[in-house]
Amino acid sequence: MLGKVIVTGSMSLDGFGCGPDPSAEHPMGVGGERLHTWLFAEAAHPADVEAGNRMRAAAGAVVLGARTFSLGLEIWGDVPFPAPCFVVTRTPGPDLAQPSGTFRFVSTVEEAVAGALAASPGDVLVMGGGSTVGAVLRAGLADEVWVELVSITLGAGTPMFPSVGELDLEPIAADASPSATHLRYRVRR
Amino acid sequence: MLGKVIVTGSMSLDGFGCGPDPSAEHPMGVGGERLHTWLFAEAAHPADVEAGNRMRAAAGAVVLGARTFSLGLEIWGDVPFPAPCFVVTRTPGPDLAQPSGTFRFVSTVEEAVAGALAASPGDVLVMGGGSTVGAVLRAGLADEVWVELVSITLGAGTPMFPSVGELDLEPIAADASPSATHLRYRVRR
Repeated sequence: MLGKVIVTGSMSLDGFGCGPDPSAEHPMGVGGERLHTWLFAEAAHPADVEAGNRMRAAAGAVVLGARTFSLGLEIWGDVPFPAPCFVVTRTPGPDLAQPSGTFRFVSTVEEAVAGALAASPGDVLVMGGGSTVGAVLRAGLADEVWVELVSITLGAGTPMFPSVGELDLEPIAADASPSATHLRYRVRR
Repeated sequence: MLGKVIVTGSMSLDGFGCGPDPSAEHPMGVGGERLHTWLFAEAAHPADVEAGNRMRAAAGAVVLGARTFSLGLEIWGDVPFPAPCFVVTRTPGPDLAQPSGTFRFVSTVEEAVAGALAASPGDVLVMGGGSTVGAVLRAGLADEVWVELVSITLGAGTPMFPSVGELDLEPIAADASPSATHLRYRVRR
C-alpha cells in the first residue's frame, strides 16, 4: 500500500513560506529565518518537538523544488531528511549521493511524487518551496497539508500556497506553542 | 481606560480575506462566501459559536473600510454590529443612522480607531477588508489579531494581510472546529 503524500511548510500569518529576496546569505529570504525558530529552539515547547518528530517520521521520501535544493544543500551538507529526495527541476541531472540519502532530479511533480511513493517505506513529505507545493496541490496529488503557522508576519516574500485553486480541507489537529500553531488537514477529494 | 483594538477576519489557508472579483452579487468575491460558513452554520460547533460570541462582545465600536461598507450595507440592512461604526473612506460624508447604530465616515484609520475607542464602552473591532486591516497594523494601532482560519483554499482573491510589515505575535488561543481554527494573538510592541 502506498503511503500518504503530505505537503508541509512553515508559514507566516500573512501567508509567506519564505521571506523576500532569498539568497545564499539569506536562504529563507530576508527575515525568513524566523519561520524556522520553532524547529531549532533550544528549550522547545512540546508541541514544537512533536511537530518536528512528526515531520521526520513522515519523511520516508521527500519532494522538494530546485530552489529549495540549491539554497538548502550548503546548509544541510546532506539531504534534508535521511531519505531519498526527489528534486523537481527544469534541468534534471545525474543522481547526487549524500551521507544520508540520494538526491534524484526529475522534471515534473508527478514524476517526483510517483518516484517518492515508490521509494518510501511510509509516507512522502513535500517540503516546498511554494511553486512545488502549488504544483502538487493543483495536480491533486496531496493527501494531507501540514502548516506550521508561525506567530509572525513578514510583510513580503514568497506565498506558501500560490494559486492552488479551491481546496476543501478537513482539520485533523491544531497544536499551539508560543512560537507556532501546528495545523494538519486532510484534503477532501 | 481605553479598550483594546482587535483586528479580525475570516481567512482562507492561502491567506485570502475575500475571494476574487467582489461585487453586489458576490460581496465576498466569487467562492468567498465559504469564508463565513462557520459563522452561519445551523448546527454550529461550540468553537464556532464561541468565536462569534467573542466577536460580538468585542464590537463596542467597529472600524471598517469603504468597500466592506458599500458591499455589506445591503446584506446587513443595518450596521454589521449594534455599535457605532467608523468607515475609512476617501470621500467622507454625513453620518448615516441605521436601526442599531450609526455609520460615521472618516478619512484615515487613525481617526477611525481614535473615534471608535472614544465611542466604545469596551473594545474596538476592526473588521477589514484587507486594506483597512493592513493600514491599522502598519500604523501600530492593533492590540490583538483574531484570525478565523477557514479550512479551505480559494486560489485567488484579496489578501487578508497585505504588506503589513514584520510583526511579532504572541498566541492567546487556537480553538478548532471542523470549519475553522479560531486563532487569537497579542501584538508584541
